[in-house]
Amino acid sequence: MSSDFDEFEMIERYFAPLAEGEPGAFGLTDDAAALAIDPGKHAVVTMDAIVAGVHFPVDENPQTIARRLVRVNLSDLAAKGAAPRTYTLAMALPEATTSAWIAGFAQGLAEEQDKFGITLLGGDTTRSRGELMLSLTMIGEISDKSMILRSGANIGDGVYVSGTIGDAMLGLALIEEKINTSDEVADAYLVDRYRTPNPRVEVGLGLLGLASAAADVSDGLVADLNHICRASRVSAEIELDRVPVSAAAQLLVTDNQPLRLSLFSGGDDYELVFTAPDNVSEQLQVLAAQCGVGLTRIGRIIDPDVQPSAVSVLDSNGKQLEAGDGGYKHFHRRGSR
Amino acid sequence: MSSDFDEFEMIERYFAPLAEGEPGAFGLTDDAAALAIDPGKHAVVTMDAIVAGVHFPVDENPQTIARRLVRVNLSDLAAKGAAPRTYTLAMALPEATTSAWIAGFAQGLAEEQDKFGITLLGGDTTRSRGELMLSLTMIGEISDKSMILRSGANIGDGVYVSGTIGDAMLGLALIEEKINTSDEVADAYLVDRYRTPNPRVEVGLGLLGLASAAADVSDGLVADLNHICRASRVSAEIELDRVPVSAAAQLLVTDNQPLRLSLFSGGDDYELVFTAPDNVSEQLQVLAAQCGVGLTRIGRIIDPDVQPSAVSVLDSNGKQLEAGDGGYKHFHRRGSR
Repeated sequence: MSSDFDEFEMIERYFAPLAEGEPGAFGLTDDAAALAIDPGKHAVVTMDAIVAGVHFPVDENPQTIARRLVRVNLSDLAAKGAAPRTYTLAMALPEATTSAWIAGFAQGLAEEQDKFGITLLGGDTTRSRGELMLSLTMIGEISDKSMILRSGANIGDGVYVSGTIGDAMLGLALIEEKINTSDEVADAYLVDRYRTPNPRVEVGLGLLGLASAAADVSDGLVADLNHICRASRVSAEIELDRVPVSAAAQLLVTDNQPLRLSLFSGGDDYELVFTAPDNVSEQLQVLAAQCGVGLTRIGRIIDPDVQPSAVSVLDSNGKQLEAGDGGYKHFHRRGSR
Repeated sequence: MSSDFDEFEMIERYFAPLAEGEPGAFGLTDDAAALAIDPGKHAVVTMDAIVAGVHFPVDENPQTIARRLVRVNLSDLAAKGAAPRTYTLAMALPEATTSAWIAGFAQGLAEEQDKFGITLLGGDTTRSRGELMLSLTMIGEISDKSMILRSGANIGDGVYVSGTIGDAMLGLALIEEKINTSDEVADAYLVDRYRTPNPRVEVGLGLLGLASAAADVSDGLVADLNHICRASRVSAEIELDRVPVSAAAQLLVTDNQPLRLSLFSGGDDYELVFTAPDNVSEQLQVLAAQCGVGLTRIGRIIDPDVQPSAVSVLDSNGKQLEAGDGGYKHFHRRGSR
């Protein structure tokens, strides 16, 4: 760690203020934190780590890194219908880390705390001999037994996604200069969709009691729907033309069918993919309007004895494009769940 | 990550079995885990990260790394009097990581789970571009409001430590060949004390209701007692000759007074330093006998208005050796809490 700051001073100055709302954090001065969960509630726990050069560029600004770290974890809670509450944070900081970087990172965390109503509970700081690595454990709350699992999908349920699919993959391709458009506004939109995930916390809370199963789209639409199918022991059929694509993405994929198909396997959208019985479709429309987020029916859950391929993608003629457990696996970009 | 394994296969094969005892882990197949805390109990949460080349040698064997990772976290729970229950784990794995390494690491975790009665709850796996980094969030349980804090020390309390102090520092110095003895048994003992921390979980549980404040000795005896003093707004006085030193350490420090003094600032002992009123001294003796661990009174808590230096160390003539908040700070070896 750079010699321009001392660890205790750093915690006291930049991180202790982030823990003020959680009395069990003891101002980050103790060995551990106390966490009281209200009777009748469960804690919901998720953990995601991000590494410089793997999940974000090594020169990414610290606020953006803080946002990403918090939001990828919030997205997991959203998929379970849990209300975010508190988090612990481990940082492995390269030697060259400056006070200015720490200040920016803490400022980013403060903004996320305000936006999502969460508070820092504790953590650990250590040196890294290599790149920056950050690990966050997010704890949410949920009423007893109501958590939305991956394993609850039933044959006949509709398959839905929130928002639009594939933007983040195109945003990353733009950053890496693998593709380009002549539309600066569209480019900026897609890059922002990659850099700043928008976890669907409000949608997730609204899906409690409506969705039979859910996951967040972090590995890619087909991969994450596949996780639901495996856990639920069912298959799914989705229709290419129904998968919602943003106007910005349309500019890129309209005349490029391979790129259009690749949107289904692009990760990092942090939208929700979920299943729900048809008798709640009106309630889903109300929820979509309340949250200002599209909830689009893209297919249905089918009998695995009839169609053993976990996820089938149908073109506009109802013809199966590519299918099977491993069908889209080769697009997998990274090893994170 | 090495191409000789797939992330999902790795989780299913090596890590899902570690989660079998915790139904809310859903076999590690969901986005998040559910954790029910019994009414009348609090969760106690701690997080520690360890990095290759910082906290252990880069070529350390995976079982030893697993042990260290679990135990440094258990030591934090022990200092609070919490009963260990479950943990989440984030791994950033270098490209060269092999299946054999993963198998050894998971085996190490399995042994710790058996020994300490804990179960894997969830986690994340990602690539590292540099060294191996591991981060663990440990969750324990405790009855309402009984947690031992750093902030509870009162003037007149005795200051105690468990076990012996300074072994780990000497063990590390032996590994780094900065010192040597001619006694192989003693050397092996000290090196093992560094490599395999022995968290004082049973002692911590027994200290509930007896200790007024506690911390684990991870940064060093003086530094960690200093944390208690700062949180409790008191000072402390410890007597050099009362600090328990192992027979193996005696061989090295008897004729080396500077080395002997440095034991007080050596980290990684993972013993407990705690304070307790004199009227529980008999109960502490019973606890020591029950646990088979020495609990030694090394000093007392004093009025900060009389002695503003947080921690004073007295020699056999009652003369103050070195004192003050920053007195031993220059010995600090690493930036982890």
